[in-house]
Amino acid sequence: MTADQHPVLRLWSLFDAFDFDGVAPLLHPGFVMEWPQSRERIRGAANFVALNANYPGRWRCRVLRFVDGGATAATETEVSDGQVSVRAASFWTLDDGLIRDAVEYWPESYPAPDWRARWVERF
Amino acid sequence: MTADQHPVLRLWSLFDAFDFDGVAPLLHPGFVMEWPQSRERIRGAANFVALNANYPGRWRCRVLRFVDGGATAATETEVSDGQVSVRAASFWTLDDGLIRDAVEYWPESYPAPDWRARWVERF
Repeated sequence: MTADQHPVLRLWSLFDAFDFDGVAPLLHPGFVMEWPQSRERIRGAANFVALNANYPGRWRCRVLRFVDGGATAATETEVSDGQVSVRAASFWTLDDGLIRDAVEYWPESYPAPDWRARWVERF
Repeated sequence: MTADQHPVLRLWSLFDAFDFDGVAPLLHPGFVMEWPQSRERIRGAANFVALNANYPGRWRCRVLRFVDGGATAATETEVSDGQVSVRAASFWTLDDGLIRDAVEYWPESYPAPDWRARWVERF
């Protein structure tokens, strides 16, 4: 992590280092994170830090794709505890250099349907 | 849809109109779409158009968030048949004004876990 990194990349670097307190200064006072799949909303840095610090397991985070849209950004991140690997798709908004809000998805695997097999490859 | 729209927004507008053939000219000859959840890869405009044209149901598409990173982009899209509503989180790369490749997630709902209830609101 470097000081001139984008705040969203710094957040993921700090998560990767399990430095949750270090994330707080990156967040806007009005910070809100939404997880639409579970209809959960985390409001404020204190709740966000506490939730992540209490998340079970030791997870490493690796950003696979980063889209920098200026006042908005998006990340595709691999989050793994060495056995289970999941992906996060996150949409961020920035305000005055701070992370203002985010909407984040945690997609799960599912079996490839048969009906479309003729048009796809498997990997 | 307007002619000067970003290719990714045009793609979603055409999907919304069920004009799948209209999508083909937006795609690079080397176009590849990946769905990591099902480990499916769709290679080439013909397969992508055919798969979507054969997708069961009549779906409308509404882009909720669009992050324009120049050579990359990301979209959060609501896709609904009027009864079932799902979200797509898509990461795009552009090449010479054409959509070169994409990685797309289709997250499903899940119940909010009890352990983190003290730090979240429900919506």
